[in-house]
Amino acid sequence: MYRPEIKILDCTIRDGGLMNNWEFDKAMVKEVFQGLVDAGVDYVELGYRADKKQFSTKDHGPWRFCDEADLRDVAFECDTKISVMVDVGRTDYDAFLPKSESIITMFRVATYAKEVDKAIHLGNHIKSLGYEVCINIMAASHVLEPDLDEALAQLAGTDFEAIYLVDSFGYFYSEHIHYLADKYISGLGGKTVGIHCHNNQQLAFANTVEGIIKGINFLDGSIYGMGRAAGNCTTELLLGFLKNPKYDIRPVLALIEKYFESLKQELKWGYEPPYLVTGVLNKHPRTALAYMASTAAGDCDPDIIKFYNEHVNVEDID
Amino acid sequence: MYRPEIKILDCTIRDGGLMNNWEFDKAMVKEVFQGLVDAGVDYVELGYRADKKQFSTKDHGPWRFCDEADLRDVAFECDTKISVMVDVGRTDYDAFLPKSESIITMFRVATYAKEVDKAIHLGNHIKSLGYEVCINIMAASHVLEPDLDEALAQLAGTDFEAIYLVDSFGYFYSEHIHYLADKYISGLGGKTVGIHCHNNQQLAFANTVEGIIKGINFLDGSIYGMGRAAGNCTTELLLGFLKNPKYDIRPVLALIEKYFESLKQELKWGYEPPYLVTGVLNKHPRTALAYMASTAAGDCDPDIIKFYNEHVNVEDID
Repeated sequence: MYRPEIKILDCTIRDGGLMNNWEFDKAMVKEVFQGLVDAGVDYVELGYRADKKQFSTKDHGPWRFCDEADLRDVAFECDTKISVMVDVGRTDYDAFLPKSESIITMFRVATYAKEVDKAIHLGNHIKSLGYEVCINIMAASHVLEPDLDEALAQLAGTDFEAIYLVDSFGYFYSEHIHYLADKYISGLGGKTVGIHCHNNQQLAFANTVEGIIKGINFLDGSIYGMGRAAGNCTTELLLGFLKNPKYDIRPVLALIEKYFESLKQELKWGYEPPYLVTGVLNKHPRTALAYMASTAAGDCDPDIIKFYNEHVNVEDID
Repeated sequence: MYRPEIKILDCTIRDGGLMNNWEFDKAMVKEVFQGLVDAGVDYVELGYRADKKQFSTKDHGPWRFCDEADLRDVAFECDTKISVMVDVGRTDYDAFLPKSESIITMFRVATYAKEVDKAIHLGNHIKSLGYEVCINIMAASHVLEPDLDEALAQLAGTDFEAIYLVDSFGYFYSEHIHYLADKYISGLGGKTVGIHCHNNQQLAFANTVEGIIKGINFLDGSIYGMGRAAGNCTTELLLGFLKNPKYDIRPVLALIEKYFESLKQELKWGYEPPYLVTGVLNKHPRTALAYMASTAAGDCDPDIIKFYNEHVNVEDID
């Protein structure tokens, strides 16, 4: 038995791009897209549409900008829809074509709860051009309950396709997910809810499954978990778990063998001690990313206990 | 709040030894034991007591045999108790000292459900010498329901310390664990239940947490998940999650940084595509271990789709 409303969104190129500055070459992205089409994945997120007035195209790979021409070089319109992410405050309102001129189906607006008004404003603009719109409320483990309730109430009044529960820091376990999934589903008045998890505590897939059990229908995954820091729920685990006959794990296993095993050796996303530490302590992974980079470069000796202690013995606060 | 009945058993050297033929050097095992003592871990399992008439000491490292003298070189009696595993059918009944002459506290008898009578017989022998005894029913995902019910009923009548639910193939997810934990706890008449999970689907820690939620109190972990094939629930994740003030994650993080990161690079336990395949398909990992070894040695080209298809398109059976 399967629930036909369940959709897999693969965000390998978008979230994985945070680990390689979106410097995937086009031949690879083309194979990734084709493999995900063959696997029956519902949405493929190919990057961000970052504001070129804020970010130079010289300093970042093409998938930070997702120009229409670049997308058409690697992807095509089919049952697998194309998604692109935009960040509140980093987006040029004039950088969107009308839907009729684009192969993109959906934009996802990433926002903090406190900026939800800006997110709704941007989402409405994109929606008016004919696209599907999702809102991803980042860092749910740092949001105060009344602020979250207010954000959900505002989003309940929109006509966006889905609202995402995002565990940016990989802090949650099943009981958190159960509590928040109930809150999102009831607070949003039955609107579709999605889930995006990070794997700091090896719980990204488990928490996504708990989301499914609680009625969440949009599921983020990435190939071999490629994503920032500890990475994401893996797309192949979702494909292996879900019962919809259209899904096929094999094309993704082939992509892992061809590209992602070696890429993971090089870029070291996944379950690594510093990411575990920030996850357990419910912290942003930026310090862990810095620790990984500086120890790999030989700039400082590894000392994970010192790293841990710096996160628990912070300066006195009042 | 914490449940004082919860105990962590670290099985790094025992289960991890399946990946390096128990060839850990004594200086390292000594540091591992001390680190686990410092972390507040309740039991440390240092290997097997394999029958020397069946297994040559020349062909395997010392932790396959756990001679008393070897144990005393690396460990000592303290609040952290020493455990050793024995396999039904691979154990010399004469190879046990009386408890008063040993630093071992507990033996764990690994058995298949169909051999539970042999396990009880061996357990009773060990118990009569003064040790604690656990029974680990392996491969629970391959046991028919009536056979499992019968085994649990028999074990309910013993005076062994705990009975383990073991997901040898890394097949279960939360709903399986909930169902089986209820079955074990009720079928065993309130006897202590333990859980030992494998990480083929990145669910070993998640399933252990689900076990805790359902009342399971003995939790197996291993450092950085070191164990056969996909490895185990990680000890450091348990230490980070549990609330008992005596637990300290830091000594284990230090051991990972000093020893286990490089060991994992070399031995490749953990979430690897062939282990994922056998886990999703509820198969023994032996074919996946062979695939990993032969592709690493260059004996055959990697072809994960062929490997997958060999496991689903088996010969016709009737």
